[in-house]
Amino acid sequence: MTHAHVAVGESSKSVVVHNVLGPKGFLAAGIAAGIKTVSGVKDLALVYSQIPACVAGLFTNNRVKAAPVLLTRRRVSKGLCQALIVNSGNANACNGEQGLRDAEAVASWTASALGLPPRRVLVSSTGVIGVPLPIEKIKSAIPSLVRRLSADGFVDAAEAIMTTDKHPKLAVDRLTINGDDITILGMAKGAGMVHPRLATMLAFLFTDAELDQKILASLLREGASLTFNRITIDGETSTNDMLLLLANGVASHRKIGHTGKPFHLFKDALFGIMRHLAKAIVEDGEGRTKVVRIIVRGCRDEKAAEALAFKVACSPLVKTAFYGQDPNWGRIMAALGAAGISFDPARVSISFDDVPVADGGVAAPRANERQQRMVMQRERFTVTIDLHSGKGEASVLTTDLSEEYIRINAAYRT
Amino acid sequence: MTHAHVAVGESSKSVVVHNVLGPKGFLAAGIAAGIKTVSGVKDLALVYSQIPACVAGLFTNNRVKAAPVLLTRRRVSKGLCQALIVNSGNANACNGEQGLRDAEAVASWTASALGLPPRRVLVSSTGVIGVPLPIEKIKSAIPSLVRRLSADGFVDAAEAIMTTDKHPKLAVDRLTINGDDITILGMAKGAGMVHPRLATMLAFLFTDAELDQKILASLLREGASLTFNRITIDGETSTNDMLLLLANGVASHRKIGHTGKPFHLFKDALFGIMRHLAKAIVEDGEGRTKVVRIIVRGCRDEKAAEALAFKVACSPLVKTAFYGQDPNWGRIMAALGAAGISFDPARVSISFDDVPVADGGVAAPRANERQQRMVMQRERFTVTIDLHSGKGEASVLTTDLSEEYIRINAAYRT
Repeated sequence: MTHAHVAVGESSKSVVVHNVLGPKGFLAAGIAAGIKTVSGVKDLALVYSQIPACVAGLFTNNRVKAAPVLLTRRRVSKGLCQALIVNSGNANACNGEQGLRDAEAVASWTASALGLPPRRVLVSSTGVIGVPLPIEKIKSAIPSLVRRLSADGFVDAAEAIMTTDKHPKLAVDRLTINGDDITILGMAKGAGMVHPRLATMLAFLFTDAELDQKILASLLREGASLTFNRITIDGETSTNDMLLLLANGVASHRKIGHTGKPFHLFKDALFGIMRHLAKAIVEDGEGRTKVVRIIVRGCRDEKAAEALAFKVACSPLVKTAFYGQDPNWGRIMAALGAAGISFDPARVSISFDDVPVADGGVAAPRANERQQRMVMQRERFTVTIDLHSGKGEASVLTTDLSEEYIRINAAYRT
Repeated sequence: MTHAHVAVGESSKSVVVHNVLGPKGFLAAGIAAGIKTVSGVKDLALVYSQIPACVAGLFTNNRVKAAPVLLTRRRVSKGLCQALIVNSGNANACNGEQGLRDAEAVASWTASALGLPPRRVLVSSTGVIGVPLPIEKIKSAIPSLVRRLSADGFVDAAEAIMTTDKHPKLAVDRLTINGDDITILGMAKGAGMVHPRLATMLAFLFTDAELDQKILASLLREGASLTFNRITIDGETSTNDMLLLLANGVASHRKIGHTGKPFHLFKDALFGIMRHLAKAIVEDGEGRTKVVRIIVRGCRDEKAAEALAFKVACSPLVKTAFYGQDPNWGRIMAALGAAGISFDPARVSISFDDVPVADGGVAAPRANERQQRMVMQRERFTVTIDLHSGKGEASVLTTDLSEEYIRINAAYRT
């Protein structure tokens, strides 16, 4: 088994990678179609599989679902697809029947250009809600988008799905399973409106391994629950979230089953890619100056631990204290208490990295505020909360809340 | 029936009122005891009733309850009290057994100075969590606090309970019931960490009318559900919230029952005071540049309407759009869809004041973005969301989210 891991967008030091080869049989492209107001910025991406691929998907649980979500969800349920076209700059949400017709038109034009049946083309959109999709611009861009398809077009595609993202988010892993050289590539976008259950986040995973649709679906669900569903930036859930996993089997001589060593190798690599992309989204969080891991342990069960961790991770007062580098742990206690989960406040201990902050629900004995501040001055640190009341544990990755978040979101769209 | 309504702190143009006479038999004072770090700033308030008063209370539902909440809740359950001492600058929360002993000590010293049994003294605190209460400072301040008690000391008391509040919040109503001249006075504090179910908000209501404890309790519950529980600034719930209603009966020759015209007169006046104070808290919201009423109507029931209104009222993306004066109504749709309430997006209409924004779930026909922006440039406006699916309706008052909120909360405490 050999491993090669290429990751783009992990930290604020952007890694510029131009020659990421995708999984075998997949081609990609990303171009500027004029959908975004700033001209020349990429806003249309296409990924094409040379043979039909098995596909599984997860979609936003927002009651208001964008047209591409409705169309793609229906097509994914058939289990096979061969192309995915994604635009940024317009969400094609809240556009009524027109929105659905537009999503279908985009898929049809793409299908014609690629010589595919329209039902094999998936669509995805991200951007402003309630503005009709500029389909004529997309229509005229499709021929050159198809011409640009190449085995190393994934960086361009990852750039074309960005909105307020500062960096493209891409991760690749190569491994040997059953003697086959398997590649898994993932790309994602998301920097605001990010919250569990796929809140405005697009993530697309491609592999040349061969797996049944049922196995793909269950891997996607389990992986999302541990990665994309354990991050938050602002507690928002979008109308357009979509997570897709395509497997075309081009590199597989033997199918990967649902147990055994091959399965576990694949699963570990896939979850690694998902974890990387989820982390890259938080790292790129709108206006963030910190990335903070909130660990809640000693809880009666994992579900309660997750609820408590998210309440802390989403609290504006906790997040502004992170931003202010102020070890005001009372805000963490108040957030825990507001989660609707019963626990004994008198058992709670809190630490920032390895520095104790609270113990037995009160300030830790010999608490050293200077040391606490030193931890908070780090760009990345961990808040560990122990309830000392069970074995349930959960971990959530969050950002601080800065003036820059407000500036970005007060100005976005205009 | 005569009405005289004095209100302080309604808008950002602070009304300075120095001679607010409280209900008969109540005296008040507020002084600087050195609890807050800035010297000379008032931080200790006392309200005293010359005879025992009936009392009802509502307390935070945060699992982490401050010591004064635990002590006062126990004493309020007995139904009678005669004094209330409140400090700002320190929450006396997360201080363990020491916190409870300190709260009891403060009550005992106050009781001694006033010649009362300690069980008749209520305590309340607001400020930083997890720092021991500086009880020696409070102990030495109590004698002069008691000496300063006067019938017009309520403005001083309202100032002394402030934390990040810019204005004291005080409202008085005088009315004639059964031939008796009745006064109701309320004071409140709160500017951040404000959310339904009494999230860091202190509000104290005093009247010289006579009512049974049971009636007081039910009026308080109903009034809070329509006023203090229908506001939000940042979705935070505190460890210290407390709402008290004291009635000493000094002005009543006839007790007010639980039905009839006298009851309704009293109820209307009381709810008016509560509504005023709740509004004053939002008006004073940390860093706010807007006060926005979110009305959800046409919903299957009131509870669903309230959940939808709060989801919109708490959404960081909606609130930053208010701040940016950007009629980005898609964010309102996305927030509605994320509330966990089922509804038909294709029936939703939205307007800003009287300007239509969305209709049938899509942009309103002939939507005029210039007019929409003009509404949003107002300091106060209303967002009306109609689901056209029932008679349920709810209204919530919220603020925008500005860079100033971040600045205040990143710096608070330090």
